[in-house]
Amino acid sequence: MSSSHQSTGNALDANFGVDYVISYRYAATDKAKAEAQFEKLVRLLVGVGLAVEVRDGDDCSLLVFTKIASERRLLGEVYRSRIKDWLHGIRLAAPEKESQKILSSEPLTDSERLRIVYFLITNPRSEGGAGITPQKGEWKDVESIFPLHDHPFNSEWLKRWSGKMYINTDDLTQIRDRFGEKIAIYFAFLQSYAFFLIFPAVTGAIARYILPKFSSIYAIAIGLWSVVFVERWKRQEVDIAVRWGVRGASSIQHPRPEFEYEKEVFDTVTGEKLKVFPSRKRLMRQLLQVPFAILTISVLGGLIAICFGIEIFISEVYNGPLKWLLVFLPVGLLSALVPTLTAILTGIATRLTEYENYATIDSYEAAMTRKVFIFNFITCYLPLFLTAFIYVPFGSLIVPHLDIFKLTVKPSAKGPKELQTPKGFQINSARLQKQVFYFALQAQVINLALEVVVPYLKRRGFSKVKKLKSSMAARRGGEKPDASINDPPEEAAFLARVRSEAELDIYDVNVDLREMCMQFGYIVLFSVVWPLSGFAYLVNNWVELRSDAIKICAGMRRPVPWRADSIGPWLDSLGFLAWLGSITTAALVYLFGGDGPGPEGTPWGIKVWGLLLTIFCSEHMYLLVRLIARTVLASTESPGLRKERRERFLVRKRYLEESIGEEASLIATAERSGEKIDTEMSGEKPEVKFWGRQRSLDESLRFGKGAISRTAPGEKKIQ
Amino acid sequence: MSSSHQSTGNALDANFGVDYVISYRYAATDKAKAEAQFEKLVRLLVGVGLAVEVRDGDDCSLLVFTKIASERRLLGEVYRSRIKDWLHGIRLAAPEKESQKILSSEPLTDSERLRIVYFLITNPRSEGGAGITPQKGEWKDVESIFPLHDHPFNSEWLKRWSGKMYINTDDLTQIRDRFGEKIAIYFAFLQSYAFFLIFPAVTGAIARYILPKFSSIYAIAIGLWSVVFVERWKRQEVDIAVRWGVRGASSIQHPRPEFEYEKEVFDTVTGEKLKVFPSRKRLMRQLLQVPFAILTISVLGGLIAICFGIEIFISEVYNGPLKWLLVFLPVGLLSALVPTLTAILTGIATRLTEYENYATIDSYEAAMTRKVFIFNFITCYLPLFLTAFIYVPFGSLIVPHLDIFKLTVKPSAKGPKELQTPKGFQINSARLQKQVFYFALQAQVINLALEVVVPYLKRRGFSKVKKLKSSMAARRGGEKPDASINDPPEEAAFLARVRSEAELDIYDVNVDLREMCMQFGYIVLFSVVWPLSGFAYLVNNWVELRSDAIKICAGMRRPVPWRADSIGPWLDSLGFLAWLGSITTAALVYLFGGDGPGPEGTPWGIKVWGLLLTIFCSEHMYLLVRLIARTVLASTESPGLRKERRERFLVRKRYLEESIGEEASLIATAERSGEKIDTEMSGEKPEVKFWGRQRSLDESLRFGKGAISRTAPGEKKIQ
Repeated sequence: MSSSHQSTGNALDANFGVDYVISYRYAATDKAKAEAQFEKLVRLLVGVGLAVEVRDGDDCSLLVFTKIASERRLLGEVYRSRIKDWLHGIRLAAPEKESQKILSSEPLTDSERLRIVYFLITNPRSEGGAGITPQKGEWKDVESIFPLHDHPFNSEWLKRWSGKMYINTDDLTQIRDRFGEKIAIYFAFLQSYAFFLIFPAVTGAIARYILPKFSSIYAIAIGLWSVVFVERWKRQEVDIAVRWGVRGASSIQHPRPEFEYEKEVFDTVTGEKLKVFPSRKRLMRQLLQVPFAILTISVLGGLIAICFGIEIFISEVYNGPLKWLLVFLPVGLLSALVPTLTAILTGIATRLTEYENYATIDSYEAAMTRKVFIFNFITCYLPLFLTAFIYVPFGSLIVPHLDIFKLTVKPSAKGPKELQTPKGFQINSARLQKQVFYFALQAQVINLALEVVVPYLKRRGFSKVKKLKSSMAARRGGEKPDASINDPPEEAAFLARVRSEAELDIYDVNVDLREMCMQFGYIVLFSVVWPLSGFAYLVNNWVELRSDAIKICAGMRRPVPWRADSIGPWLDSLGFLAWLGSITTAALVYLFGGDGPGPEGTPWGIKVWGLLLTIFCSEHMYLLVRLIARTVLASTESPGLRKERRERFLVRKRYLEESIGEEASLIATAERSGEKIDTEMSGEKPEVKFWGRQRSLDESLRFGKGAISRTAPGEKKIQ
Repeated sequence: MSSSHQSTGNALDANFGVDYVISYRYAATDKAKAEAQFEKLVRLLVGVGLAVEVRDGDDCSLLVFTKIASERRLLGEVYRSRIKDWLHGIRLAAPEKESQKILSSEPLTDSERLRIVYFLITNPRSEGGAGITPQKGEWKDVESIFPLHDHPFNSEWLKRWSGKMYINTDDLTQIRDRFGEKIAIYFAFLQSYAFFLIFPAVTGAIARYILPKFSSIYAIAIGLWSVVFVERWKRQEVDIAVRWGVRGASSIQHPRPEFEYEKEVFDTVTGEKLKVFPSRKRLMRQLLQVPFAILTISVLGGLIAICFGIEIFISEVYNGPLKWLLVFLPVGLLSALVPTLTAILTGIATRLTEYENYATIDSYEAAMTRKVFIFNFITCYLPLFLTAFIYVPFGSLIVPHLDIFKLTVKPSAKGPKELQTPKGFQINSARLQKQVFYFALQAQVINLALEVVVPYLKRRGFSKVKKLKSSMAARRGGEKPDASINDPPEEAAFLARVRSEAELDIYDVNVDLREMCMQFGYIVLFSVVWPLSGFAYLVNNWVELRSDAIKICAGMRRPVPWRADSIGPWLDSLGFLAWLGSITTAALVYLFGGDGPGPEGTPWGIKVWGLLLTIFCSEHMYLLVRLIARTVLASTESPGLRKERRERFLVRKRYLEESIGEEASLIATAERSGEKIDTEMSGEKPEVKFWGRQRSLDESLRFGKGAISRTAPGEKKIQ
């Protein structure tokens, strides 16, 4: 372990063909049981056609290395997986049946191989997998199942991206081939978003230096931009999914192992056993989201509002002793309580989502994402909403009433005099700008640091602590032998690397997506306050695109390459924020625009009906523009959809040509002879008589022409 | 002809197996050309495998009877059509390939047969059809292509429905089997809508007799109802489409013969010739819709507004002579000018839609529907909007200014005195109620009469005129011989019937859908004014459901059985009206609710901000409820979707079973021997060494168990 960073050598280059490493940690299990379960694990893995090698892991754990045992087995699984895709309509043409052609016609990517092997390990036994569910049920000792980083690729990746301005389709396809579509589509989104940010960055710079403050022109530009961006991305997403051949992949849903069914229904039609949980019951359980949302809003919102009040009171009303210290009180409170509360609420949300008992992983994740969005919305935007729509307009009414604090502060304050509202009390109208500025710049920098620097330091710290521990243990007589003691020398470096990768965190792409989604929210909701935020975010995201790559390569375990055809529920969040933006931006422009804040820094010139009318118009303009954007985008065929149409045409044509062939000869005969083909005519039914009156084509023609020559009006005049 | 109604006898029962009658009218064509074109027509029909019989038609026309020539030809076409459906994903399982099984596994319905034959006649020659396009291009003499009514079925149908309260699924399926899905889905919609109307009918009765006028409770109930109805129908539509096997049928789009392509691109990938019209260019042309909409609104809206002004002026201000006559002036103006203007505007709309140059029939129809909706919206709702939101609130401000009329009316009026605004001028607050009442009751009755009675009278009138004409002609020496002169006696009655069916109008289901859509609009927009309208519409629609059946059976040519999986663009119109309803209803309740109209009959107690806030809340409540309704409906699986899922499962299972078989044996061998299957290991690469260290499953197990027994903590304590 200790030599891992020095003697890596070729250890970083070679993965020995390992597909997955299974970390089996038996520290908390009875020995006999651990042995039996370990044997079961290995037997099941071999049973589904995997090769297995076992090595020692750190601290009472074993590393089980697996790869698919034979080329033939792999081909079979690839074929089966592609057939399944075809049946679900994800791919349009059936895959090649001959095993030689399977891989030559469509090469197997790293991510497809890893995905197939992952399902071999984790799918239920009834579906042909080994049924290993990490950390759940009988497999609670299976700590993790992870693939190994491809270090040559990673360093090549980081090098290429750090020298590039724009991440193009080829770059993204490479990521998709290694890390799967779910991660690649995040990078595609991030690149597309960063590119689109050029518009708010430029417009923002113009608005900041040329246009008046709270310019309605800037507000309209941002509104249009948000519509175009969201609708454009919706299309682009489809395009990307088609290009990568994963369109509709979200319809293959993976069953959630924790799902508890109420009854098992044997479907007589399909012969399928259906695990049923009544949707009405789930709906009832989902209703708990309403009290949960109310709880979240009141607890989290209440905390933020109280801290906000304290802060204003201390910084703008209070003049007593210790002011320099007390100013930090609300910030301290927030930093201490918000994470705690969020953690508690996340716990409740998780339990609630589990109680809602979803049958598939996708629906579970979507439900959880929806709940998480509520927290994020409150913690991110509520302070700004409070400043913009409570503090500034109503500040001079509300602030004096913060005097209720007098009662609690009184003993420590010198006297009641300092607590009286100062005569010349002024709303601090720069507060909103400052806050937006903070979120646009400082928060992003801090966040970046938290994402990249802190995990690095943490890792360094951990490894030092570990070294210390093991050296202490060694001094005490080596109670726990170093895991590397049994390593064959030529594998030592490799195994050391694997052990350190096993300790890394799991990468969750939803966290990064959430971050971008919230950032988009700042722009559409509040950038009219400080128009340079677009520029700040553009710079941030250029860095983010690369720092996320570093994070995945160096800070995280290599993720399992999931498929995805969309950024999923976040798309709805983007749409919601853009909509809300049409309301808040209009309100901000109406409240603060024009002649600037009125007397006492508050916009007293406003009329409620004017505000409401502005919001009403702005919102409906937004909806109208969105409708137009959708119509226009729907009327143009995107490259991806054109590709899909072409492929479909090819499939269709091949099948149709086969089916046309049969009849062609029949028709040809009929045409040549001019005779009727109906062979079922016999007897003297009126129907038979009717159709037999003109015995051939010629007779029909003669009859018709006769009638025409008799009655056609044009000719008569000439005759 | 003259004996058609007396001696029908079996003429009504037998169609002699005729699929389509083609009416070839050569009255306006040169004789030689007519003969040549007729010959071409018949040869083409025979060429695609149709049997042909020719008979005389009325007035310089021929009736070409066609049916599919042989059972084998039919089977081939059915198979091809079903294969095409399968390739487009409309059906999930491929059709049976053996010709004996094609019809036994899925019987051929009337409508499927007629649809297939119709495409044989009309499809372009490049796609295997005869390429006959009625009234267009070289086929301008082909007046119509129509199937014959199935009179036994029709009379049975009318009898059954007239005795039934509720039209159920079986009844609708029968209609679908005869008239195709497009018409059947209209009846399904009408039945569903009529059934849903029970709620507004009951609530309306309660609101009328128990609740106060302009009750907000009734308004909320109607708002909820509209959301549930529209969202429910969206789901139901899918369900019906799945049950009838037409889901996605709208994706098979039929090319529009009039489409003018700019260039033909040879697609090297598919080898397909693409007719391209740049979508950017079409988009530019579509922009003409904006001036067109403005024109429509100003012309039609202006006319209505002017007539409205005149009416109010005459009925409420004017007191001069001829008042009893002048009162009818605006009504007369409207009845004379609105249809004229609508006709002119429809002409412009048609030309505009043609100019937009759509490639498919569906997109053309949708574009036309959108334009027609604008007219209908204005003519139906504008008078009510004017009364509710202009006349009542601002009447006492505006009406005195109608005095500008004095200048024109002066000479005929006795003097200026009568034209002065009467001192005690009162807004006629019952006007709105009266108008809504008129639209709910009178307009529906009149419409019903126009739909059923007028066509009947027209038909009667025409046939009398014709009789008169022919008797006059006979007296003059029989210039035009009666068409029936050559009829074989046993076919005379049948041919007479065919000739009369050829003269009937074409049924357009869009007209009926529009009517229902507009009616839905009255309920959601204005029923709060007169809550009994729901009840009136319920009664009307119960009759409508049956009178439409009569109309199709007796008043119209039998329609070509088109497929459809939706009511199409009307669904959007319903959604739009429901949304708009959330705004108007809130405004009406706020304006007129509460303590009733203020002094002078106008609601002066209102505040603009209150009105706007009410609208804002109501609209967002509507959107929220819609979101919830969608989520809830999406979470429950409908019977149709369950059926689809089952079918998909069956298909999937069959294919997967085939593909699994191959590998099963391989896996079994591996498990038994416990040996690794990898055969590619050779040489001394480190990778090979790594995987060869544990030579068998047993060695791996021994290594792992050894490690566990060495380090497992639980056991150590026990030892």
